[in-house]
Amino acid sequence: MAYELYYWDGLQGRGEYVRLALEDAGAEYIDVARSKKGMDAMMKLLGSKTEPHIPFAPPFLKDGDLIVPHVANILLYLGPKLKLAPKDEGLRYVAHGLQLTIADIVAEVHDTHHPLATDLYYEDQKEAAKTRSKNFLDQRVPKFMGYFERVLKQNPHGDTQMVGDTTTYVDLSVFQLVDGLHYAFPRAMKTFGKHYPRVAALHDAVLQRPNIAAYVDSERRIPFNESGIFRHYPELDQDAK
Amino acid sequence: MAYELYYWDGLQGRGEYVRLALEDAGAEYIDVARSKKGMDAMMKLLGSKTEPHIPFAPPFLKDGDLIVPHVANILLYLGPKLKLAPKDEGLRYVAHGLQLTIADIVAEVHDTHHPLATDLYYEDQKEAAKTRSKNFLDQRVPKFMGYFERVLKQNPHGDTQMVGDTTTYVDLSVFQLVDGLHYAFPRAMKTFGKHYPRVAALHDAVLQRPNIAAYVDSERRIPFNESGIFRHYPELDQDAK
Repeated sequence: MAYELYYWDGLQGRGEYVRLALEDAGAEYIDVARSKKGMDAMMKLLGSKTEPHIPFAPPFLKDGDLIVPHVANILLYLGPKLKLAPKDEGLRYVAHGLQLTIADIVAEVHDTHHPLATDLYYEDQKEAAKTRSKNFLDQRVPKFMGYFERVLKQNPHGDTQMVGDTTTYVDLSVFQLVDGLHYAFPRAMKTFGKHYPRVAALHDAVLQRPNIAAYVDSERRIPFNESGIFRHYPELDQDAK
Repeated sequence: MAYELYYWDGLQGRGEYVRLALEDAGAEYIDVARSKKGMDAMMKLLGSKTEPHIPFAPPFLKDGDLIVPHVANILLYLGPKLKLAPKDEGLRYVAHGLQLTIADIVAEVHDTHHPLATDLYYEDQKEAAKTRSKNFLDQRVPKFMGYFERVLKQNPHGDTQMVGDTTTYVDLSVFQLVDGLHYAFPRAMKTFGKHYPRVAALHDAVLQRPNIAAYVDSERRIPFNESGIFRHYPELDQDAK
């Protein structure tokens, strides 16, 4: 039976990390909100008064009766089935830890344009967004990306994958993170490859994977836009260091 | 061999969710930064140029050679060993999803006092903190707590635990979350039990567990303070609705 991915229509958002894994593996899945079932099916499940295991928010995955919410949890669940997780059980906790660190920086990316409240308009928090974005680019990106660069460098199996000796869902998520940052902050990211050569190389390598290349060129890949996590607001960008 | 928990000394912070599970289970563990080894041992591991699986930040757990970072990941790993996870494998993903939702609200609690930047002083972002705190108390607490109340209500095994028919690490984390909110926002939390009776009852029930009661009364429980996630700044609090 096909996996059912529930996520908002019209944006990559957090659903994209799951889509990339499903696409890379060539797995059969239904992107429910974009299918005939539509958003109603998702809203019905979120608002259910009887479902025993309701999710807090999209994305969530439905596999038969099981509902798995949260990107990192979904990838933890799917990883072994899609052959995108380390075989070693201990390394699976390492991979999951890396994915949770990616979730943390993704949340910080969101807060660059919404530092005060998710449900206020960007225009009503633009000044705070400028302060937060500057701090994000000056302090947080180097902290996170310096860390990912070290993870690659110190991987005893080689610096072309984040964990173990095979490509995992973590590598696909690093691709998406770097890709999104290039979209949102093109000026600040201009020298990215100079500072973080291994992370940049990993991004490029993932894009060469046949299923990812085909997906990114397809209509299934929603373009980055200003409804997503990565938003290009020129006033939040700055010159590269 | 005793588990080694690595976390900052002097605050409950994110380490506390792990401590509560270890304490409830009566497990043998070393709180490394507060032991003879001290903070140096933690900083050495974080800065290691050779360790193959470096964590991004505390807390992390060391069990033999395995290093497991991130609260939810640590509890995923420890849960079955401490008999604080559901026996059913599918329900373990449900429990983990709930724990990740708790991690999300905990991050939002942190941002009530640090909305613009983690590394700026609170005093330098106090006005933004007021806006964010008001939104947190008016919108986000009802959204999260309404959700947790529904999870309890819709648990087919009864409304005295978050998942399945036994106490899990998720219940202990709900206790800590509610306890922290009472500390940080005593005025706003005054009517909490009226709005979320099941969540409030769960908090109280966890506090009655013998090992938790003994821990909370011990010197091992660091009091809430303004270095932690839950900080009591009266100017960020408001009257209950």
